[in-house]
Amino acid sequence: MREAYREDLASIGDSLVDMVRQVTTAMGQATSAVLEVNEWQANLVIDHDHKVDLLRQELEDRAIALLARQQPVATELRTVVTALRMSAAVERSGDLACRIAKLARMRYPVCAIPDDLRGTVADMGQLAQQLMNQAAEVITSKNVEEALRLAQSDGQMDQLHRILFDQLREVTWPHGCDTAVDVALAARYYERYADHATSLGYQVIYLVTGGRTERPGTSPTLRAELRHA
Amino acid sequence: MREAYREDLASIGDSLVDMVRQVTTAMGQATSAVLEVNEWQANLVIDHDHKVDLLRQELEDRAIALLARQQPVATELRTVVTALRMSAAVERSGDLACRIAKLARMRYPVCAIPDDLRGTVADMGQLAQQLMNQAAEVITSKNVEEALRLAQSDGQMDQLHRILFDQLREVTWPHGCDTAVDVALAARYYERYADHATSLGYQVIYLVTGGRTERPGTSPTLRAELRHA
Repeated sequence: MREAYREDLASIGDSLVDMVRQVTTAMGQATSAVLEVNEWQANLVIDHDHKVDLLRQELEDRAIALLARQQPVATELRTVVTALRMSAAVERSGDLACRIAKLARMRYPVCAIPDDLRGTVADMGQLAQQLMNQAAEVITSKNVEEALRLAQSDGQMDQLHRILFDQLREVTWPHGCDTAVDVALAARYYERYADHATSLGYQVIYLVTGGRTERPGTSPTLRAELRHA
Repeated sequence: MREAYREDLASIGDSLVDMVRQVTTAMGQATSAVLEVNEWQANLVIDHDHKVDLLRQELEDRAIALLARQQPVATELRTVVTALRMSAAVERSGDLACRIAKLARMRYPVCAIPDDLRGTVADMGQLAQQLMNQAAEVITSKNVEEALRLAQSDGQMDQLHRILFDQLREVTWPHGCDTAVDVALAARYYERYADHATSLGYQVIYLVTGGRTERPGTSPTLRAELRHA
């Protein structure tokens, strides 16, 4: 029985990493759909999204069944509770990749991103994927230092976001308001995706230490607990 | 002991309703800050937001402690799991109200919303509050029919969102791209807020019936379970 319990816990972790990998791929495909004006790739992301939703449902069902049957405490309880939280963030990240793909499809065969912003959007896409890749690694390794590094990485996306908005808000913006709106929304989707990826870092810290999961700036508790981790 | 357990469960529900009431108020204040160019009110929403975050933390701590100590099953387990999920959605709704307040403050003393869109934005604000009020009611009443009505109410906000975007995307949009971007982001915040409010309807359905919590369009399971609810 104990063995089956451990297997159940491990399989919840595996499903979570699987979900993270899938939304990382989705974000890569969505970014190339929007930058390379690739309708086929946009459709791929949009059609695949419900699979991530289903994975989350299955994961939740298993997590809740495990709570009911095994009544875990301490670290094992935190494993299940964080799996529930993390799967919600990962599913939402998939939705955001899907939003970017929908933008590409809505504008097809025109490119939603003007030439002079392609570089910044490509950087946002790459950073989004990189953060989610790191998330998969820290969920597997449960390394608190790496998790904290991930959790504190949201500044990089904020910086790209600011660069893009500075260009958008230029008086001489030459691409029309329609395009400005598309770019602003795309930037928002990348920013939120990155927020979810970094939030997974906080979840891993909570899982390992039991410490609070909000940003260190507002959490002396977390910092104190990390010192003893 | 049993009595204390019931009290703990009830107090988690009370805290949740308290959070919902607070983010409803925040949304009302944020909308009037942005429409009436009221910086004082914008600051009120922004300064208050961390209190909702703290309420969520306290609620989560209590919910997890209850899982560990009381090891609930069946309806009581669902009560705790949905409280965890719902508190996340409510906290996020508070963040979105805060985003609207920040928009008002960023543009102050200019109004972020052009005159000809004030009516639609006022409607979005009112609908957002109304949906969150309904959420507080169904969390209290646990009435499945009302919860389903709430869950299926997202079409109204989508319609207002479409009206606003049609105006934004008009070739003759006269207010500048800067304003178009502000309006598009504000619309997105209202839309997401409404999504969170309606998601609370699904959570109540799950709480009462144990049925799946996603949109009925994708869930024959939920419909089947509701027939037997």
